[in-house]
Amino acid sequence: MKGYFITFEGPDGSGKTTQINLLKEYLIKKGYDILVTREPGGTPISEAIREIILDTKYEEMNPVTEMLLYAASRAQHVAQLIKPALAQGKIVLCDRFVDSSIAYQGVGRNLGIEIVEEINKVALQGIVPDLTLFFDIDPEIGLKRGMGRGRKADRLELEDIAFHKKVYQGFCMLCSRYPDRFKRINAEADIQEIHYQIINEIEQLSRYGK
Amino acid sequence: MKGYFITFEGPDGSGKTTQINLLKEYLIKKGYDILVTREPGGTPISEAIREIILDTKYEEMNPVTEMLLYAASRAQHVAQLIKPALAQGKIVLCDRFVDSSIAYQGVGRNLGIEIVEEINKVALQGIVPDLTLFFDIDPEIGLKRGMGRGRKADRLELEDIAFHKKVYQGFCMLCSRYPDRFKRINAEADIQEIHYQIINEIEQLSRYGK
Repeated sequence: MKGYFITFEGPDGSGKTTQINLLKEYLIKKGYDILVTREPGGTPISEAIREIILDTKYEEMNPVTEMLLYAASRAQHVAQLIKPALAQGKIVLCDRFVDSSIAYQGVGRNLGIEIVEEINKVALQGIVPDLTLFFDIDPEIGLKRGMGRGRKADRLELEDIAFHKKVYQGFCMLCSRYPDRFKRINAEADIQEIHYQIINEIEQLSRYGK
Repeated sequence: MKGYFITFEGPDGSGKTTQINLLKEYLIKKGYDILVTREPGGTPISEAIREIILDTKYEEMNPVTEMLLYAASRAQHVAQLIKPALAQGKIVLCDRFVDSSIAYQGVGRNLGIEIVEEINKVALQGIVPDLTLFFDIDPEIGLKRGMGRGRKADRLELEDIAFHKKVYQGFCMLCSRYPDRFKRINAEADIQEIHYQIINEIEQLSRYGK
């Protein structure tokens, strides 16, 4: 098993970061070379774009601007970090990727999934995740968990619950649209149980030689 | 004559800013309501994106990232500033617009004009310039003029002369592609002569009721 690209999707507060770290430790112990990264971000340029996207002072940001900024950040991330890491045979664990753009901007912002997929096509340069783990959690529970950590909400987290419910529906739609790649993880289970669910999905990936 | 969108294109150092200011004074004296703006920029979000695009420390920027950042900046500029100004009947004078993306990223960076036009379609929201003045100047002369002002070169100006010659060819191609909208201005003439050339083009626009 080498050169795999695994993305972690789902609402804020669904426990993605905790699980990425557990999986990273597990895979390192098994001897794999791991790259952990996140979106928006992962490279200096992408992190600079992230600061603009998430800054709460930019309330006036147009949904199209938002979509294009995510795509710009992703283009740099793919070209500079993800594509070279996969070429070196690494397992890349990425906290959010193109599916977040489809759920948040395509569905949440009503831009439509076709336009988001079309714009991102040029950013992706042919890179598609081998496995996408959807952290399925009620968006209200997720938001409360995320905010319970004492850090300040970013511009997207500050959106109302109706927005976050639409985003959740977007992720559910993606699960149906891409059943081979998308695997649903019960993110309301306890940490160790979620970790086992994820290992199970990874082992199936490996078993089928994907 | 109201609600006109006039864009100024051409190499750096071709005198666009000087001429925009002269035209602005001329049109204000004639009683028109004028908005002067520039790309990338024009709104707080677009100016923040501009800082990333032009920062000389980001040598590693991927051409696709660059194209998407220009488009993101433009989407905000159009939605927040240009579209409302045109709806209010203003004459908008804009220093660079979508044609710069076609010449710099489509031709200069070899991305191809089709992809740049496609990506920008969503950013433009149906807004097309009524008149585009191409400041035609030998790119070597332009670069020397631009740098002669004592300010620091930005990331794009630092590109070699071969790049700037390709960009120039891109603008010439656009002149042929959009002959109704594109008007070539001899930017090697003296300031007052250029100003008259521009007034002449504006008056033709007005005469034909465009």
